[in-house]
Amino acid sequence: MAGTVFFSVSMSLDGYIAPSSPAELMGKQWMELQHWVFPQRFFRQNLNLGEGGEEGRDNDILRETFERTGANVMGKRMFEAGEHAWPEDAPFHTPVFVVTQAKRDPWERAGGTTFHFVNDGIEAALDQARQAAGDSDVRIAGGGETILSYLNAGLVDEFTIAVSPVLFGAGVRLLEGVDASKVALEQVRSEASAQVTHLTYVVRAR
Amino acid sequence: MAGTVFFSVSMSLDGYIAPSSPAELMGKQWMELQHWVFPQRFFRQNLNLGEGGEEGRDNDILRETFERTGANVMGKRMFEAGEHAWPEDAPFHTPVFVVTQAKRDPWERAGGTTFHFVNDGIEAALDQARQAAGDSDVRIAGGGETILSYLNAGLVDEFTIAVSPVLFGAGVRLLEGVDASKVALEQVRSEASAQVTHLTYVVRAR
Repeated sequence: MAGTVFFSVSMSLDGYIAPSSPAELMGKQWMELQHWVFPQRFFRQNLNLGEGGEEGRDNDILRETFERTGANVMGKRMFEAGEHAWPEDAPFHTPVFVVTQAKRDPWERAGGTTFHFVNDGIEAALDQARQAAGDSDVRIAGGGETILSYLNAGLVDEFTIAVSPVLFGAGVRLLEGVDASKVALEQVRSEASAQVTHLTYVVRAR
Repeated sequence: MAGTVFFSVSMSLDGYIAPSSPAELMGKQWMELQHWVFPQRFFRQNLNLGEGGEEGRDNDILRETFERTGANVMGKRMFEAGEHAWPEDAPFHTPVFVVTQAKRDPWERAGGTTFHFVNDGIEAALDQARQAAGDSDVRIAGGGETILSYLNAGLVDEFTIAVSPVLFGAGVRLLEGVDASKVALEQVRSEASAQVTHLTYVVRAR
C-alpha cells in the first residue's frame, strides 16, 4: 500500500513562500512567515536548539508532518541552500531524493538523513522516494519550483499550507504558473491556531 | 463612535478575486470562486432569487457582513460592471459612494440603495461613507484596485477573505501591489465551513 505524496509549506497571505533571492532566506520577511514555527518544541528538538518550547496544536502539526514522512524529495536549489546551513544531522531523518543534474554519490549524514542525487527527472525521483518510504508518505520538501512541477504533473495527492498573517509584496510565489486547467482542489481540513491557519487540500484532476 | 472600515471578498488559493476581463465576470472560474455563496438563503433573498437555501455558518457570515454595513464604497469599474447587472433594487440597501471622475446626480434605487458619485478621491468618499454609516461599519465593496488603494493608504481597519479551493492561474490579484513595508496583519479569526475558510485580519501600521 503506497503512501500519500504531499507538500507542506508556510505561505504569506499574498501567496509567497520565499524571498526573491536565497541570500535573503533568513531575512526579516521569511522570519515573519515562519514565526509560528520557531517556538515549537518539535522544531527546536529537531534542529538541536535545546529543550523546551510550545506544545500546542502547531507543535503537533509539525510533529505529525515529520512522522508521516518516509522519504523527502527536493529540488537542487533547496539542497544547495541547505547543504551548508543544516546541522551535521540534517533535519530530515529520512532518505532525501534531490532532483539535480549533478552526479554525486549518496551523502550520508548523522541521524538517518541520506541525500540521493537523481539525474533523470521528477518522476524518477518520486519513484525512488516511494520505494524508500514504503507505507509512509513522501513529502515534496521544496523549493517552490519543484513543488509546482510535481503539482502540475498531477503527482501530488494532498497538500497543507500554513497561511501566515504576513505580506511579502515580492518574492517566490508558491502557485505562480499552476496549471489551473488541470488541477482541482477540495478543502479537506482547515485548522486555525493562534497565528496561522493550516489549510489542507486534496488534489483532483479536472 | 465611528464604525469599522472593512472589506470582505472571496479569493482563490492562488490569490485572485476576479478574472482578467469584466466580460468573463460570470465565467466558470468566478462561479467556482463564489460557489459557496450561491446556495445560501441570505444571498438568494437579497437578490430576489426566491425562498429557501442553506442556513449554516456560511449563510450567517453573509448576513452578518450585510447587517454590519451602514454604507458601501466602490470603485467606478465595479459600479460600471454592476450598473446594468444588479436588479432594480440593487443588493446593497445602504448609501453607496462611488469613487469616480464622472459627475452625476445621486441615483436612487428601490430598497434603500442610493449611489453617490464622489469626484475628489478615496478619502473624501470614505469620509462621506463614515458620515452616512453613523455607528455602523463601512464596507469597501470593491473592486480589487479600490480595495488595495484603501489598504495601502492605511484606511482599512479589518478584512475577511473567504479562501476558496479554486485556482485561477491568471486574473486580478487582490494583494498585487500591496505595500508590505507599511501594512502589518494580525489574524483575529479563522473559521472553516464545508467549502471555504473565512480568514479575518486586523490591519496594523508597521
